[in-house]
Amino acid sequence: MKEYYNPNRESWKELLERPTISLKEIRTVVQPIIDAIIEKGDEALTAYTRKFDGVELENMLVTEAEIKGAAKHLTTELKEAIKVAHKNIAKFHKAQQIKPLKVETMEGVICERKSVAIPKVGLYIPGGSAPLFSTVLMLAIPAKIAGCREIVLCSPPNKEGNLHPAILYAAQLSGITKIIKAGGAQAIAAMAYGTETIPKVDKIFGPGNQYVTAAKQLVSLDAVAIDMPAGPSEVLVYADEDANPAFIAADLLSQAEHGVDSQVVFVTINDEILSDLQKEIYNQLRELPRWEIADRCLQNSLVIILKTEEEAIDLINAYAPEHLIFLCKNAREMADKIENAGSIFLGYFTPESAGDYASGTNHTLPTNGAARAYSGVSLDSFVKNITYQEITETGLKNLGPHVEEMAAAESLQAHKNAVTVRLNSLKNK
Amino acid sequence: MKEYYNPNRESWKELLERPTISLKEIRTVVQPIIDAIIEKGDEALTAYTRKFDGVELENMLVTEAEIKGAAKHLTTELKEAIKVAHKNIAKFHKAQQIKPLKVETMEGVICERKSVAIPKVGLYIPGGSAPLFSTVLMLAIPAKIAGCREIVLCSPPNKEGNLHPAILYAAQLSGITKIIKAGGAQAIAAMAYGTETIPKVDKIFGPGNQYVTAAKQLVSLDAVAIDMPAGPSEVLVYADEDANPAFIAADLLSQAEHGVDSQVVFVTINDEILSDLQKEIYNQLRELPRWEIADRCLQNSLVIILKTEEEAIDLINAYAPEHLIFLCKNAREMADKIENAGSIFLGYFTPESAGDYASGTNHTLPTNGAARAYSGVSLDSFVKNITYQEITETGLKNLGPHVEEMAAAESLQAHKNAVTVRLNSLKNK
Repeated sequence: MKEYYNPNRESWKELLERPTISLKEIRTVVQPIIDAIIEKGDEALTAYTRKFDGVELENMLVTEAEIKGAAKHLTTELKEAIKVAHKNIAKFHKAQQIKPLKVETMEGVICERKSVAIPKVGLYIPGGSAPLFSTVLMLAIPAKIAGCREIVLCSPPNKEGNLHPAILYAAQLSGITKIIKAGGAQAIAAMAYGTETIPKVDKIFGPGNQYVTAAKQLVSLDAVAIDMPAGPSEVLVYADEDANPAFIAADLLSQAEHGVDSQVVFVTINDEILSDLQKEIYNQLRELPRWEIADRCLQNSLVIILKTEEEAIDLINAYAPEHLIFLCKNAREMADKIENAGSIFLGYFTPESAGDYASGTNHTLPTNGAARAYSGVSLDSFVKNITYQEITETGLKNLGPHVEEMAAAESLQAHKNAVTVRLNSLKNK
Repeated sequence: MKEYYNPNRESWKELLERPTISLKEIRTVVQPIIDAIIEKGDEALTAYTRKFDGVELENMLVTEAEIKGAAKHLTTELKEAIKVAHKNIAKFHKAQQIKPLKVETMEGVICERKSVAIPKVGLYIPGGSAPLFSTVLMLAIPAKIAGCREIVLCSPPNKEGNLHPAILYAAQLSGITKIIKAGGAQAIAAMAYGTETIPKVDKIFGPGNQYVTAAKQLVSLDAVAIDMPAGPSEVLVYADEDANPAFIAADLLSQAEHGVDSQVVFVTINDEILSDLQKEIYNQLRELPRWEIADRCLQNSLVIILKTEEEAIDLINAYAPEHLIFLCKNAREMADKIENAGSIFLGYFTPESAGDYASGTNHTLPTNGAARAYSGVSLDSFVKNITYQEITETGLKNLGPHVEEMAAAESLQAHKNAVTVRLNSLKNK
């Protein structure tokens, strides 16, 4: 890790800059895939699955038998863990439901607002060596609570044409039944535009590689909404003198093992822990199956030693981390001063991995500084808020003349007239 | 208006399709403008203002004297109307504040969620003949309630280098003091990347022409969040046999006067009102200053006559209108069945223009079918929700083993280890 002692504020911007990932070139690779799906639907989808996943599928739809059979491939402990996670995630996301709002802004003018489910949503779950069944829970549970009518889950099949049983188990537990063996940009395009097998959805969620990300960008300009912009995962850990170096090391490494492009930042105002921390990192790293990835990632990561807590707060807000861990006594006090972060972990016994899997919060979070303007996925992500208004005759008498005045000033005579014809009809009563 | 009697469901998709607006070509025009702003900042901005707005500005920042002087150019009635609108909009948007959420998902595992203001936002207000001061209110009021620290407003100057006094008055009333004379793609780029005069913001709001829309699309792929995708404004009016044809005509025309590409749809199950409606449209249209625009718009608009209310509901949901007006006795009952719409106007005395200006709801709404997945602008648009968690030693004993199980199953050993080192430290206690 590269150490920076008291970097001056002018240098922060450059120091904290994420590597630029331009998807421009990848977008030019992905666009023809999207066009092919629009034009040829399932036929193109099957062909891409053959090409990119190396498998010839007879049926891309996962059968009921496959879904039901998944449970027997998992240990009792894992099934129990998934159930606990499901329960906690459901509890926290159910609590996010907001009641309909009704406000009489002036006599006879009633304004309202109500959450309504997005009818059709698509969930993308990446394939690869590690089955991200936790992401299934994080997306499917709020989609079900929101009441989305149609929930489609796409995930690329392995060489045998199967999805990992943990993915199927998590999906089934969450009440998802339309599961499609399709991955990559082609799956995103299929959900965005619809094919014979895959319904066109209104919004697409989920992580993925650069092709998936580029495809989500492109379809979002045209056909559907997406959850948020995606980038490599990040953690910023802040620790005080009482933090156990083994905990700090473990938290940094759990981010570093994600990939060589993961962003890992350690901030402290107490440099005495650094030598113990280095030892802990070394000891824990050598035991990790993914040590090579974690090691390469750490070589690019930052250790920043500052003078005061206030400086640390300012630096964290400037960075806007996806995950922020406060391993310090006054974690709550520090967190109250944070204006930019995706999710915050408070205190010595709150590792990020708790939130990644099972505590109840969502793990789909804004990266690459997007935490300045974006929230993580939540129940809100699966609904929209429709506004309503009802104006009584009295209400229109109160409000109407002001509307007429403003419409006239914006040179919109017909807007004014929509009030005038109504007020006139009341005069004649 | 083109009339369609009982179109069968298979034809709805085509019938309701909006004209495709491809911004691909416009994006290629806009990208060099963005690049120039990134490279040359204010210098490029001033040059574009000279080129596109035809004015040489000495100072692009509106002065305090200009802001204070605006009020004297407006009538007392207009100022009063703007104040009433301000009060109603503020009241409805303040009511949208959500309390911090705290849930103990299992013993010792506390999950929380809190709204935090987006620190820096940029508001774009188009120029042109009609000064959209109402949009100033719709964007500035929730930004102030949310507590955004830095609010920048950009709007193109007229040939004399001024902004319309109504825009300045509405801004000042809303507490906005950083107002910049800049418009078009160059203003969007300046807010997205920052210049010497204009701070880089985290999210950009506001309507605009196709160049502004294309610029918002492009910067949203790279630098900032944007409010929502933009398209021509739309209304769908549903009326029953008791609706006054003059009201229907006025509501259709108030949409039609926006522009020739405005989308106007009228749906009914009672074709007996059509001849009276046509007469009303003719009579009202001829009195409008913008009659040519409205007339051309109406030529492309739709009248759809269906057999049942249920069919009407289905068609409306398929169309997902930005504005939806129910001129019928059972407006409330109909509205409860709507799953896709931006904002809904209930009953005979609730014209869209009330919500466009002053009732309290926001008029920045999703168009082009985006109402399926997007909400209109609200207080939510100016905040993000940060999640927090705090786990006690007991909590980690309860939850930790499940996290270890799931992390191991996803082959993420370091994630597991972040729990294990902590549980081990508790064993040794």
